Amino acid sequence: MESQTERLYGDTTQLQADIEHISRLAAQLLPCYADISAEHTLENPHDNARLQMLIGILHELHPADVAAVLENLPQKERVLVWKLAIPEEDGEVLLEVSDAVRESLIETMNRDELLAAVEDMDAGELAELADDLPEQVVEEVLQDWDEEERAQVETVRSYKDGQVGAVMDFEIVSIRADVSCEVVLRYLRRFETLPDHTDKIFVVDEDDVLQGVLPIRKLLVADPDELVENVMTRDVVKFRPEDDVEDAAQAFERYDLISAPVIDADKKLIARLTVDEMLDVIREESEADMLNMAGLKEEEDLFAPVWDSVKNRWVWLAVNLVTAFIASRVIGAFEQSIAQIVALAALMPIVAGIGGNSGNQTITMIVRAMANAQISTTQAMRLLKKELGVALVNGVIWGGVMGAVSYWMYHSAGIGWVMVAAMTLNLLLAAVLGVLIPVVMEKIGRDPALGSSVLITAVTDSGGFLIFLGLATMFLL
Amino acid sequence: MESQTERLYGDTTQLQADIEHISRLAAQLLPCYADISAEHTLENPHDNARLQMLIGILHELHPADVAAVLENLPQKERVLVWKLAIPEEDGEVLLEVSDAVRESLIETMNRDELLAAVEDMDAGELAELADDLPEQVVEEVLQDWDEEERAQVETVRSYKDGQVGAVMDFEIVSIRADVSCEVVLRYLRRFETLPDHTDKIFVVDEDDVLQGVLPIRKLLVADPDELVENVMTRDVVKFRPEDDVEDAAQAFERYDLISAPVIDADKKLIARLTVDEMLDVIREESEADMLNMAGLKEEEDLFAPVWDSVKNRWVWLAVNLVTAFIASRVIGAFEQSIAQIVALAALMPIVAGIGGNSGNQTITMIVRAMANAQISTTQAMRLLKKELGVALVNGVIWGGVMGAVSYWMYHSAGIGWVMVAAMTLNLLLAAVLGVLIPVVMEKIGRDPALGSSVLITAVTDSGGFLIFLGLATMFLL
Repeated sequence: MESQTERLYGDTTQLQADIEHISRLAAQLLPCYADISAEHTLENPHDNARLQMLIGILHELHPADVAAVLENLPQKERVLVWKLAIPEEDGEVLLEVSDAVRESLIETMNRDELLAAVEDMDAGELAELADDLPEQVVEEVLQDWDEEERAQVETVRSYKDGQVGAVMDFEIVSIRADVSCEVVLRYLRRFETLPDHTDKIFVVDEDDVLQGVLPIRKLLVADPDELVENVMTRDVVKFRPEDDVEDAAQAFERYDLISAPVIDADKKLIARLTVDEMLDVIREESEADMLNMAGLKEEEDLFAPVWDSVKNRWVWLAVNLVTAFIASRVIGAFEQSIAQIVALAALMPIVAGIGGNSGNQTITMIVRAMANAQISTTQAMRLLKKELGVALVNGVIWGGVMGAVSYWMYHSAGIGWVMVAAMTLNLLLAAVLGVLIPVVMEKIGRDPALGSSVLITAVTDSGGFLIFLGLATMFLL
Repeated sequence: MESQTERLYGDTTQLQADIEHISRLAAQLLPCYADISAEHTLENPHDNARLQMLIGILHELHPADVAAVLENLPQKERVLVWKLAIPEEDGEVLLEVSDAVRESLIETMNRDELLAAVEDMDAGELAELADDLPEQVVEEVLQDWDEEERAQVETVRSYKDGQVGAVMDFEIVSIRADVSCEVVLRYLRRFETLPDHTDKIFVVDEDDVLQGVLPIRKLLVADPDELVENVMTRDVVKFRPEDDVEDAAQAFERYDLISAPVIDADKKLIARLTVDEMLDVIREESEADMLNMAGLKEEEDLFAPVWDSVKNRWVWLAVNLVTAFIASRVIGAFEQSIAQIVALAALMPIVAGIGGNSGNQTITMIVRAMANAQISTTQAMRLLKKELGVALVNGVIWGGVMGAVSYWMYHSAGIGWVMVAAMTLNLLLAAVLGVLIPVVMEKIGRDPALGSSVLITAVTDSGGFLIFLGLATMFLL
């Protein structure tokens, strides 16, 4: 997998510069797209020089960096560069790219190219790709595999996204407890290579039931004559395939794990989890939270066609439009008041705005906290009390400031006091809903991040208008 | 570090239940706070039973889980539980908790407790804590350490947050290239234990210049008589202490690294990075982005006193108030128009709202993309074109819908057309600023996430009101 001449980037700036360079070369080569392949030379010497340079760079890149390059190229350049990538690494690149880009790459590949790309994968890898591949390709590959591997692919595919089973792999090295460390070392030497991320060897009994783990760092310093059972660790963090993968990722973070066993209901060792998959989970989870809060369905291919982006965003825009319409009707109900005091129209967005801003601060903080741990009812009550306190302080301070400004602008003490009261009440409303929305979402089994920003803004807009115009109508008219 | 009876949580639900349990016990014990310590029994048998149960649970917990417990307790309960934690693990717990909670714990500890907690740390760990500790304590600990360790602490402390140097550690195992694998194995066996996350041994020459790395997985399968130089990998991802730690974390993700060497300007090996630190970096980075977008200065202790929260949030609330005031003045400028057509007051928040929502979608997507890679000027132009396309489509669709609704409500074709035009224009404005704000922020060296949500909303509010009321004044009056 690693060649002697590989470019590896510890520093993203250099990778970024190379992506720019590749992007320019690819754009310049677009006109001769039809004639381009990794094997042929181009007639025009300038173009050919560019082509050879492009191929040269690509062949020095690690598959993960090829993936980064592809993600950062516009569609046409992406397809051109993909044609020139090393075919033997196609599979690894497909595993590395984001889902959105993966689809666009697979679309350009024919059956033989796809077969070549996936035939050397292990069961976990094939299972990861399988949903994006034509079913026929998957079946064809599986035909050449043995019974056990086929069953493994089946197993992984039977678990849902977000379950441990969907990201586990089967590259397990296991031993018995009653052998000496010397024997283990000799056993390991018989392997061609050990699987990536082998920081521990799993210790099982004759029924494959997990007994413990033998960390390599203990094996290396142990007396060779010592038995495994005297060196191994019995306290093991283990997972079940049905477990939530985000919980597993948190366990990896808390206990600084590199790999961990996955066991079935009978405590039999069936697979393992590795930290590289957990890194992806953590990255994706926090990205998803952020995108969901803003009302984006999922990660977008940055250079997706306009129409794909429209589809990714329309739901929450539609929700927003409905809530904005409601806010508009709230104002409509007070048209009489506004007709009498037009200043109300100018002041009302301030009340709505500060509520939205403050509510977003609260809800963001709570959604973040929930990503790390659930919030119990007792805690929720305590948080609510605290947020109400913060809202009250902010209401008095900022409401006071804006009340004074309004008084000064409109020479009306009434308008000033209505501003103070309305801002404080809307901040309190924002605090209550900022805590309640995510807590209730979680209780009813929804993702607390989902559209939370759109929802809180909806409440503080309609609520703010209602409170402000209502108070004004009561006290100023 | 690991005891035989440790509770380890693969599943967060169980941890959560135990946190609840601890929280209840601690709350019940609060009245006898003054009499509580890990050594004494309480007179009241009920209280004593609770105390012993609490101590029992705490002593079974892994330090990382004690940290999780403390983070989820209100201040008073937190101090009580902290008194009961195993003193020998205090240091590890302090390293695990979030910055905000760490401060609150250190405040409760006297000099001797702090000294006891940190004296067994390694240089990297002490350096991590040093800024939160009283300087006197740090100096006292350092006095007992040897010259080399003192220099290491100095070195780490000399780097800024966000630099590789600030999170590197010195637990390096290194060997020469001209020895056999057998010799390496014998050398390793002389260690009491190997450092955590030792997945590779660093190969250096007589001047400590890095030659390559010997992955343990290769060492274990290698012929014992083979020389290290024939087994080692020469293509190594290496870092400099001045490097950006987020870049390093991305390299760990791309290349699936467990540990990596840190070298100085002369290519001498000085330290290493490990994946557990990188996990923290990734988690913190994405949290920071999310909090910053919403206008929160930093992660809050969930149970911080009200006043601390007010301080954490006031800056962006103040900014929001200024921008809301500007929006209010924009409306104020059109009071004449509103006085004539009061319907304008009811419709204007719809225009502002959809702009804010759509702008937040764009800016969130771009801030996310920037977290993974910079966006070049060419890419920014391409993104701008795409976002303008999306805005145009959305403007025509949603503007059309709302235009029709407004026409139907107010029986005025003019109002309908003004809605269509204003919504489309505000969506286009949101698209332009949604791309420009983060790109410009990055260009001038600011964090693109910082308050971006507040800023885009400010623009789409003022802009939306101006566009809508301006068009209405021009065409409807």
